[in-house]
Amino acid sequence: MESVRVTLSDGKSVEIRRGSRIYELASLLSVDGGIIAAKLNGSPVDLSRAIDEDCSLEWVSIDSPEGLDVLRHSTAHLMAHAVQSLFPGTQVTIGPTIQDGFYYDFKRETPFTPEEIAKIEQRMEDLARANLKVTREEMPKAQAIEMFRRMGEDYKVSIIEGITEDPVSLYRQGDWIDLCRGPHVPSTGKLKAFKITSVAGAYWRGDEKNEMLQRIYGTSWPTKPALKEYLRLVEEAKKRDHRKLGQELGLFMISDAIGPGLPIWLPKGALLRSILERYIVDIERSLGYQHVNTPQLARVDLYKRSGHWDHFKDNMYPPMAFENKEELVLRPMNCPHHIIIYKHELHSYRNLPIRLAELGTMYRYERSGALSGLSRVRAMTLNDAHIFCLPEQIQAEAVGVIRLIQRVYRDFGFKEYWYRLSLRNPKDKINFVDNDAMWDTAEEYLRQALAEVGVPYKEAPGEAAYYGPKIDVQLNDVLGHSETLSTVQLDFYLPERFELEYVDKDGQYKRPVMIHRGVISTMERMTAFLIEHHAGNFPLWLAPVQLKIVTVTEQQLDYAREVFTELKDAGWRVELDERNEKLGYKIREAQLAKIPYAIVIGDSEVQAQTVAPRRRGGENLAPMPLNDFIERLKSEVAQERGEA
Amino acid sequence: MESVRVTLSDGKSVEIRRGSRIYELASLLSVDGGIIAAKLNGSPVDLSRAIDEDCSLEWVSIDSPEGLDVLRHSTAHLMAHAVQSLFPGTQVTIGPTIQDGFYYDFKRETPFTPEEIAKIEQRMEDLARANLKVTREEMPKAQAIEMFRRMGEDYKVSIIEGITEDPVSLYRQGDWIDLCRGPHVPSTGKLKAFKITSVAGAYWRGDEKNEMLQRIYGTSWPTKPALKEYLRLVEEAKKRDHRKLGQELGLFMISDAIGPGLPIWLPKGALLRSILERYIVDIERSLGYQHVNTPQLARVDLYKRSGHWDHFKDNMYPPMAFENKEELVLRPMNCPHHIIIYKHELHSYRNLPIRLAELGTMYRYERSGALSGLSRVRAMTLNDAHIFCLPEQIQAEAVGVIRLIQRVYRDFGFKEYWYRLSLRNPKDKINFVDNDAMWDTAEEYLRQALAEVGVPYKEAPGEAAYYGPKIDVQLNDVLGHSETLSTVQLDFYLPERFELEYVDKDGQYKRPVMIHRGVISTMERMTAFLIEHHAGNFPLWLAPVQLKIVTVTEQQLDYAREVFTELKDAGWRVELDERNEKLGYKIREAQLAKIPYAIVIGDSEVQAQTVAPRRRGGENLAPMPLNDFIERLKSEVAQERGEA
Repeated sequence: MESVRVTLSDGKSVEIRRGSRIYELASLLSVDGGIIAAKLNGSPVDLSRAIDEDCSLEWVSIDSPEGLDVLRHSTAHLMAHAVQSLFPGTQVTIGPTIQDGFYYDFKRETPFTPEEIAKIEQRMEDLARANLKVTREEMPKAQAIEMFRRMGEDYKVSIIEGITEDPVSLYRQGDWIDLCRGPHVPSTGKLKAFKITSVAGAYWRGDEKNEMLQRIYGTSWPTKPALKEYLRLVEEAKKRDHRKLGQELGLFMISDAIGPGLPIWLPKGALLRSILERYIVDIERSLGYQHVNTPQLARVDLYKRSGHWDHFKDNMYPPMAFENKEELVLRPMNCPHHIIIYKHELHSYRNLPIRLAELGTMYRYERSGALSGLSRVRAMTLNDAHIFCLPEQIQAEAVGVIRLIQRVYRDFGFKEYWYRLSLRNPKDKINFVDNDAMWDTAEEYLRQALAEVGVPYKEAPGEAAYYGPKIDVQLNDVLGHSETLSTVQLDFYLPERFELEYVDKDGQYKRPVMIHRGVISTMERMTAFLIEHHAGNFPLWLAPVQLKIVTVTEQQLDYAREVFTELKDAGWRVELDERNEKLGYKIREAQLAKIPYAIVIGDSEVQAQTVAPRRRGGENLAPMPLNDFIERLKSEVAQERGEA
Repeated sequence: MESVRVTLSDGKSVEIRRGSRIYELASLLSVDGGIIAAKLNGSPVDLSRAIDEDCSLEWVSIDSPEGLDVLRHSTAHLMAHAVQSLFPGTQVTIGPTIQDGFYYDFKRETPFTPEEIAKIEQRMEDLARANLKVTREEMPKAQAIEMFRRMGEDYKVSIIEGITEDPVSLYRQGDWIDLCRGPHVPSTGKLKAFKITSVAGAYWRGDEKNEMLQRIYGTSWPTKPALKEYLRLVEEAKKRDHRKLGQELGLFMISDAIGPGLPIWLPKGALLRSILERYIVDIERSLGYQHVNTPQLARVDLYKRSGHWDHFKDNMYPPMAFENKEELVLRPMNCPHHIIIYKHELHSYRNLPIRLAELGTMYRYERSGALSGLSRVRAMTLNDAHIFCLPEQIQAEAVGVIRLIQRVYRDFGFKEYWYRLSLRNPKDKINFVDNDAMWDTAEEYLRQALAEVGVPYKEAPGEAAYYGPKIDVQLNDVLGHSETLSTVQLDFYLPERFELEYVDKDGQYKRPVMIHRGVISTMERMTAFLIEHHAGNFPLWLAPVQLKIVTVTEQQLDYAREVFTELKDAGWRVELDERNEKLGYKIREAQLAKIPYAIVIGDSEVQAQTVAPRRRGGENLAPMPLNDFIERLKSEVAQERGEA
């Protein structure tokens, strides 16, 4: 028997008969049933692929990112199969996976109705239960074109004509066939938990000059409970959507008259933002950051020197022409402005580190279709800072920033987050500055900083910036997707481009290192995140309105006004509802506005000179003198801020 | 004797012989000797003018604005006379008056040297002492051209060729003659106190394509003491120049790399600015203003609707083209953004007034030649607010704003300022909205508001905005020139253009009134003004660095650090000078940095656990326990802020 050697990802190796199928090997090794594909010498393949020579092999389990991708891709095929069996004449086009699911675009004159969608889902169930074998075959390109032409699949023909491979691969399940690279599940019976989530129109090849297609979105999971949990989270995410809550809570608006992607912070949102801004500025000042205030635009030449113009021009606003051929442009980033400030004076090693900070507004040219609420905008204000330091100060500065991030996250109520150390790909000399010594040193500084703080972290090769490694702090959104909110980034590149200097102990001019760091991200992004994370129920210290006084009748208004004034003078953000409405109605309104406490005042409170606080959640506290309540509020804030 | 009737400005009238000279009438009436010209039927004329028919007459005294203008214009002639008598072949061109003085542009190949300037001044003195009679004559234009051509005065020829009057008027003193409308002093002996202040190059007709002329600037005053006082103030103003102090105190910089007119607020300046910003925002919030935060740009269409595009385009930045023919432009004013917020909701009369406020950054296209420090810039942040109210709320709102201005000015240490009620010119229907009823009502509201606050004011017809009357609050700069820092402006026009509405008691939709108001002006302008007003010696509460701790030797550093931490934790802006330098040197540096207090710590302070404060002015306070000093500081701030 002729055999080949298969090296597995755990380092072990096994000899099997040449030409064995991967599923045979799986069976031989009693690999767990959750395997739905494999990686052969690093490339994803079907389990039915034959092993013809010595190779390395990695199992792809159904709940790994790659496995989920296979699962969803196969579910897209399942859906197309169902659609074409139900609606003959409907043409298939493309059907990729997306985050948490997939879509498929069909050529059909009319949109799918809800009844049709239900039928499609039913047919998908039937086809899955039939456990059709999914098989791969290869076909010469010309033959494939001919076949799809006969089937009336003009779009497939057009797609195949546009690709260079020959032969092409096709996947067949029952009587249905599609062009596809794969891999796919071995049989449709593996598809156990899926759902169509929405329908929409979409242009062929994304171009509005082309004909309109019908897009159906779906999701697919390894198990029914996983699907159910996902759908629950989607519902929860909808409730927490910052665009919805932002409107309901009167935090911000977008106006067509002003322009898309340019949020307008309404009074309560602007108040929340100013609480965030003062909070971080005050902490930063106490930590030795020097806040500056720089113009939001500059000469185009500045960005030519920084390199932004060459690498980032497409994301910049159009320049504005002034007299004498001067061109100004809204800034895409704040770093060059801070560099100009650094260069304004001669620095000695004794003055470093210099930490220049700013709530810096920046502009990004985003296509209007990509814009969304506060999270994808055309103008944003970053909690930005640039630390100019000696190489030997990098570790201490990075530690300082990580500790600041920890403090801020605690105050914001973020309990789960993780650190990613984003490194270069050492083989890639094009996307990462080619200077191994620099990278090794810089990466080591950051590793040591993380070690000093004593937090676990994951290394992510290839995720660094062009000019240096960085620490990314990752948070999960409601759907469990990870987002970078804070970063600490080393930069040896801009100091070089701008010829930054300091005078060292030995009297020599040397280059400082720059650390770009963002703690609370942009005001826009952090506000969106805070809204969704807390479902609008901001911590007491952060709530734009903290307290709302409601009286049982108008009889108690005099006393209520005294309470109002006392709270306001003590620095609390308080409102008094003076309307002649029913108590229940007023409490409900305060609840909907997600105000942390309603302060109820009736006759007994007036008589006893007390207040009856009611928590946002519905819990009624026993009536107490106002001063006691204020003490309680103070200690609640202290607890939130970790000062208790 | 044939007589004519002259009506004087006090309403009295007198009959004199037809053909009398005005100076004869002055002599007849024993008018004060400070008269140097007159206004005949409203037009300025020489005292030698003959009175040929019934007329009204007003005396122009030498120290009135019009009198000073005559004086300075005559001094310009005196200077040109001196120059041409000293430097034959030098041609005259133009010589207008400017604020506080005059200049004259001469055609001469080489600039005037300091020695030549001294000679010119001396010759001017001589010519003044000679008390040459200054006489007016008229000459047919052609004859005047011929005369100046013969004299070799090409520029005068060119000027006369360009004017339409015929005959033209000329002024002669001694053997010197110039084309001039006049009026002038009767004789050079009236010119008693003048000085050449500077020389510069200037292009003929202000066009850099033309030949370069030599410009000599001078000033002229009725008396030597007035001149001396003016020159003292100029020196004082130079010392207080915010551009000079701004640099010395490290408050701001301008960078050619970023662009002219775009100031960069350095750490101390940014701190000062943030003190100003938080101060005014906190007060405004407590007064019921709702602060918002809106984008600094908008679609061009928004400014078309507001009318800014038509009337103000030349002062706006160039628009930026986006996808789908969308054009965005940096905003020249904040009002349209606040209007969009107002329109976002339906308003009841019960919700009004709505006071929307913002530290709103705006952009003005200024030619680079016009830019200056923080006072003339291309980007500025206004302490802006727009009050949307019922007509019957105008008075109360205007009163509220005036009282706010009074409070802020007291806190800023502004003691002398005055109110100007800027009204329409009722005859001018082009520069002022044509709606007499509206104007009468609006003007009356503001009058009543000023009366309610009980402050005196001057009415200034013709100084209103296009769309409504306003109250301007005027402050004098160091040279005594009045500037508008704060305004309260009524606007019935934008509510109309944007169709703003509220639902009134009767259920009808009605237009609210808008009040545009600025209290502390732009951050840029107010900072420039504060620097110059206080010569950099900011009040304690406003100083970016309030306290500087200096030790006699390094021995006291431990104790000094304790003092530093205690002061910092108590919220004071304090620095500790840890350098090993001489005490005197460190104190001098604190003094130059205009820090309100140096806190001196020597061995005796360490032993007694006290501090020895030293005021910015040099006064040493007796050593005292730190807590006593903090109490003292608090009461000083309270006194500055009128809270004592």
